[in-house]
Amino acid sequence: MLALTTKTRDRVFAIAPFLNTCIRRLLPICRCIAAGAVLMAVVAGARPAHAEDGYDLWLRYRPLSGESAQAYRASTTRLIAPATSPTQIAARHELLHALTGLLGNAPPTADAVDGDGALVVGTAASSPLIARLKLDTAKIGREGYLIRSVVIDGHAATVIAANDDIGTLYGAFHFLRLLQTNQPLQHLDLRESPRLKLRLLDHWDDLDGHIERGYAGASIWDWHKLPDWLDPRYTDYARANASIGINGSVLNNVRANALSLTPLYLEKAAALAGVFRAYGIRVYLSARFSAPIEIGGLKTADPLDPQVRRWWRGKADEIYKAIPDFGGFLVKANSEGQPGPKDYDRTHAEGANMLADALAPHGGIVIWRAFVYANEKPDDRAKQAYDEFVPLDGKFHDNVLVQIKNGAIDFQPREPFHPLFGAMPKTPQVLEFQITKEYLGFATHLAYLGPLYEETLAADTFARGKGSTVAKVVDGSLYGDKHSKDALTKSRLTGMAGVANIGTDRNWSGSQFDQANWYVFGRLAWNPSASSRAIAEDWVRMTFSNDAAFVTPVVDMMMRSREAVVDYMTPLGLHHLMAHDHHYGPAPWDASGKRADWTPVYYHRADRNGIGFDRSATGSNAVAQYMPPLAQEFGDVKRVPEQYLLWFHHVSWDHRMSSGRSLWDEMVYRYTRGVEQVKQMRATWHGLDGKIDADRYAQVAAFLAIQEKEAQWWRDASIAYFQSINGLPLPAGFAPPAHPLDYYEALSFPYAPGHG
Amino acid sequence: MLALTTKTRDRVFAIAPFLNTCIRRLLPICRCIAAGAVLMAVVAGARPAHAEDGYDLWLRYRPLSGESAQAYRASTTRLIAPATSPTQIAARHELLHALTGLLGNAPPTADAVDGDGALVVGTAASSPLIARLKLDTAKIGREGYLIRSVVIDGHAATVIAANDDIGTLYGAFHFLRLLQTNQPLQHLDLRESPRLKLRLLDHWDDLDGHIERGYAGASIWDWHKLPDWLDPRYTDYARANASIGINGSVLNNVRANALSLTPLYLEKAAALAGVFRAYGIRVYLSARFSAPIEIGGLKTADPLDPQVRRWWRGKADEIYKAIPDFGGFLVKANSEGQPGPKDYDRTHAEGANMLADALAPHGGIVIWRAFVYANEKPDDRAKQAYDEFVPLDGKFHDNVLVQIKNGAIDFQPREPFHPLFGAMPKTPQVLEFQITKEYLGFATHLAYLGPLYEETLAADTFARGKGSTVAKVVDGSLYGDKHSKDALTKSRLTGMAGVANIGTDRNWSGSQFDQANWYVFGRLAWNPSASSRAIAEDWVRMTFSNDAAFVTPVVDMMMRSREAVVDYMTPLGLHHLMAHDHHYGPAPWDASGKRADWTPVYYHRADRNGIGFDRSATGSNAVAQYMPPLAQEFGDVKRVPEQYLLWFHHVSWDHRMSSGRSLWDEMVYRYTRGVEQVKQMRATWHGLDGKIDADRYAQVAAFLAIQEKEAQWWRDASIAYFQSINGLPLPAGFAPPAHPLDYYEALSFPYAPGHG
Repeated sequence: MLALTTKTRDRVFAIAPFLNTCIRRLLPICRCIAAGAVLMAVVAGARPAHAEDGYDLWLRYRPLSGESAQAYRASTTRLIAPATSPTQIAARHELLHALTGLLGNAPPTADAVDGDGALVVGTAASSPLIARLKLDTAKIGREGYLIRSVVIDGHAATVIAANDDIGTLYGAFHFLRLLQTNQPLQHLDLRESPRLKLRLLDHWDDLDGHIERGYAGASIWDWHKLPDWLDPRYTDYARANASIGINGSVLNNVRANALSLTPLYLEKAAALAGVFRAYGIRVYLSARFSAPIEIGGLKTADPLDPQVRRWWRGKADEIYKAIPDFGGFLVKANSEGQPGPKDYDRTHAEGANMLADALAPHGGIVIWRAFVYANEKPDDRAKQAYDEFVPLDGKFHDNVLVQIKNGAIDFQPREPFHPLFGAMPKTPQVLEFQITKEYLGFATHLAYLGPLYEETLAADTFARGKGSTVAKVVDGSLYGDKHSKDALTKSRLTGMAGVANIGTDRNWSGSQFDQANWYVFGRLAWNPSASSRAIAEDWVRMTFSNDAAFVTPVVDMMMRSREAVVDYMTPLGLHHLMAHDHHYGPAPWDASGKRADWTPVYYHRADRNGIGFDRSATGSNAVAQYMPPLAQEFGDVKRVPEQYLLWFHHVSWDHRMSSGRSLWDEMVYRYTRGVEQVKQMRATWHGLDGKIDADRYAQVAAFLAIQEKEAQWWRDASIAYFQSINGLPLPAGFAPPAHPLDYYEALSFPYAPGHG
Repeated sequence: MLALTTKTRDRVFAIAPFLNTCIRRLLPICRCIAAGAVLMAVVAGARPAHAEDGYDLWLRYRPLSGESAQAYRASTTRLIAPATSPTQIAARHELLHALTGLLGNAPPTADAVDGDGALVVGTAASSPLIARLKLDTAKIGREGYLIRSVVIDGHAATVIAANDDIGTLYGAFHFLRLLQTNQPLQHLDLRESPRLKLRLLDHWDDLDGHIERGYAGASIWDWHKLPDWLDPRYTDYARANASIGINGSVLNNVRANALSLTPLYLEKAAALAGVFRAYGIRVYLSARFSAPIEIGGLKTADPLDPQVRRWWRGKADEIYKAIPDFGGFLVKANSEGQPGPKDYDRTHAEGANMLADALAPHGGIVIWRAFVYANEKPDDRAKQAYDEFVPLDGKFHDNVLVQIKNGAIDFQPREPFHPLFGAMPKTPQVLEFQITKEYLGFATHLAYLGPLYEETLAADTFARGKGSTVAKVVDGSLYGDKHSKDALTKSRLTGMAGVANIGTDRNWSGSQFDQANWYVFGRLAWNPSASSRAIAEDWVRMTFSNDAAFVTPVVDMMMRSREAVVDYMTPLGLHHLMAHDHHYGPAPWDASGKRADWTPVYYHRADRNGIGFDRSATGSNAVAQYMPPLAQEFGDVKRVPEQYLLWFHHVSWDHRMSSGRSLWDEMVYRYTRGVEQVKQMRATWHGLDGKIDADRYAQVAAFLAIQEKEAQWWRDASIAYFQSINGLPLPAGFAPPAHPLDYYEALSFPYAPGHG
């Protein structure tokens, strides 16, 4: 009899749910294979496709054309991949599942190379074949991988090699991407490793299933049925994330509910962690700063109070008992009504460090958000985070990162990069993007955010001279790894976080094209220098088709789409003119919010004479938060890029633009151009009818029609309002708004989704 | 050139979205057919099944076994079915889609019978072939149909004939059911017509997507994207309902929001009506009685106020302009805080008649709910609806129906039938069942409600002597059609309503087996005398398998399942002992509700000496609301059926039961038996592993595990509590509760789904 040690038994139990899932999902594949691979190949093109609803994301694995498939089959004649650890099983399963779909049948699995075309997957530890190759994996780290064309025992083969199982899984997805995007498999010599250590999705999911700023249905976390029911969707979520390198998931809203930290909910979070673990994804939780009061029975949450510190240490111990690889806490403190250390006259650093100390013994981290501003302060909202956090640089413990939104206001269609980037050299900074389109048309507007992300990452902070891009700040390369050692590894912590756009909608993201925003976020978090256009092309090929007549116009359309939104919503640096709370539709007239800095009039400051927020030296002087070369450029109305004109300056309506038009005429021109752009997108899409499945074609077409309607609404309402302020005529040839201003002002949408 | 009249053009536009949907859904089928029917037949059994997630409901249409398929192909060699009206198109599409799935290929469509095995579908008006047969369709009405084996031009054929297109669609679904359940197609002579005119689903869906008592995700109505985006799911919803004869859908919660009646939302409801129309489903709306104040700008909603009456007439005109076949209003008035006519000292009849008058010119109806009770009244809640409504019999206008829950309290696992049934002979009574399992374990407990529905329908009211079943009250046959004429037809209005269990969960109903409750409700609304066991068998065969080794044990399990819930939750007539508000789990100790009649202690009245609600002559005398034979039986503690003992009587803990046990011992026995029953269900299911797809097997298995855990919780918490009251020992051999009482009392589930 075999006597299991307790530890071994625990491990077996820990992976049992995962194995169950694997077995369940592998069964249909096994049945197929048994039914005859040849038959499969014949019918692959003919079988009645089930509804193409977008569920499969970019991992569709639909049959490739005969010619491509033929070539790829020659390079995947057998699969030699160990499958003893959960991650190894996941990698092997993905390869078998994908190759079955793409090529009509799965390659046989094998142990030795006895012919050409073997695909060999593993680490030196897991695979004797790979050990023999003595590949140079020294510099690719734990998560990196090599994909190489090699010769083994006289036979051509392809290896996917890594230092750790998770690297082989990432490599397997990369290898599959080559097939999905119709790349050759000859002479491969790929070497990849992530530039950022933390690649996180932030879910703003509440315990009741509502998602703040969610436009894709309810939360996919079925808290009520967890931990007992593990929806297969959790596994598909993990697969999708692993395929783009995301390695952490913050399960709950930053406006956190302390109940998430109670045993009832920790057991549920642990069940999710159990599903995600094989895919290299750690679970994080948003922590409510006042939890010691709300669920701990204490009278205070003062971070310097010994009882509070003890409570959090105990809580951390409890969490790590349930989730041994728990990632850490994300915290929104003293922001928009959330509790925080300042309630006790402590600094953000004191608050963050207290939590960090509780997590440190377990290797956990704290991600502390810099999105803070106070209505009570008479100062420009855009300046407050900088003013608050820069003095704290150097005061955070090693396992604390500060998470900063891409811009200083709030995920607008366009913002200049946040001046905090590069301004806290001693503090690891996590760049936070919003993937969900709170301010860019919810789920129905086609707006590819790749160019927005790329614009921020490529922006030069000048923090250490020219070339000090936000990307270099975030990946730490600007600081040469010398300022800090951290709790996870010996080098500086780095990270990027995306506010997820994932919900229970069948297509995950609310629309087919919003899947691309999840995808590009992951790819850029892996490599912040990647091209958003190249990523869009990968995504289109994997998600829809390799047909160039489809790929090219669609990628072009995607690349222009974000600029269209800027044009029809908030051109020339205008910002935050959306309706209150739900942010659906235009409300530049709104002055009724309970906080001035939540009202559009606070931001556009339009009057009879001009428009724009003066953040130059004559105004709030927010420009001074940027490094001198930029401060001068942004602060000078003659030099500021026009796309930021009204962000930094209040100018007269007849201000002369580079086009030769007056500001007012230029605004009307841009609003109109935005609508025209959407019309062109509709025409483009219309011309592609028949090139993809009818189901997804129809949904995109319907959503583009909504987008056009709403773009027109944005244009007309905005023009009507600003015209009521400036009394100016429209330039010749531009249609007046369809309705008078009071029509737009009277529109009301109390149940628009995603409210905060 | 063809000049369209305005009316014709409007009609074309009205069906345009529907045609779009049809075309989109037919495309893949056409492609298949083009790809070669023979190939299809070969591969039908071999193709990799997509995940079996339950989305297809009982309309799965998976390939039949070779032998059955062979026989059925001979009876469907060609399809002769007109397809000019939307309903005809829907019927033809369903037949082609289903036969493709079931038999591997679709029969060719044809115009003439030139060989054996034609399937001929239509009305005398639409099909010359059917006109020639001169079938006797006089008595089957507008919705009925015949399915007959006939000889046409010397060839054996099958006809599906009706008086109206909707009859042919119903007939098509019935015909398909024969194949799906493995019935012979020879010598068919079926004649079907619905016993009830209104067969309705009541959706308790709020405008924000929340569903009151919803356990299957959020509302499937995507109000935000309506009317522009018509989710294909709306069509599948209509198909599923038409397949079981449901002909009306109340879109919004009876706790209504007046905004549902504003132009913004009427346009959205009209879009849904446009999808449903072809499937014979009318749209209804819950109307908030105070809407004239909230959205009409009036100062009152007094039903006798001329302005109020004018406002509702105008609103009705507006609705019918948008939805020409609008069904009418459902109203919850003066109940649980809802506004109503009593706010103005008017009767329910005055309120209902005012709305009925507004709808009458358009053929609309009012369904007025009798679920009223007032905390302020010192009287037994169970008596109040009867006391309020019986005096109003004869006072309602012809187009008003009164909707009555199956029991006098609230959808408990078991209640005696509502005494109002049969007590208002002049008033059409709609029987309201709850399909969603608010009180029967939410989505995770397997509880087939067919036996519950059947028990109510078969209950004898004695209203006109023995044999006056609730079914005969509801279908009007008890009254011989003589008391009323109505607005829709010349005969009495009749109806049954089910509170839907439908949500965005992929499987629609939250669990695989909850689909059966939707199914059986529809089938019983069509024929209230049908057998719930026979319907369960149909459902199992259509949904899972025709394998007798699967069908028999699963039907047996389903038929016993509801009694198991009664046992482990509320045996022997106990009721409403669920936790407050969300009703998740036991809370017999709870006395903290803001209304006495919302607390468990109000209902069980347990003390040191005994337990039960005395509704006999010595107590509230609710028994007197039943006809004399029943009043005597229910009122006599010696004669009352034991299943209603504690519903009608307060008896001592040592009351002797027919088993010979004391009441307390019997309670412990029944609680325990309920848990044992669930264990048996798990064992049964475990033994069926491999007989169906792994995906659905796994979900059911996981949910049964949850059910066992929660059944144990119910048993243990209930026993612990009642033992704390009576101080009695457990009978020998019965395990004590796993935890002390305070453990159960401390459990808290603030985010349990479906709150009110």
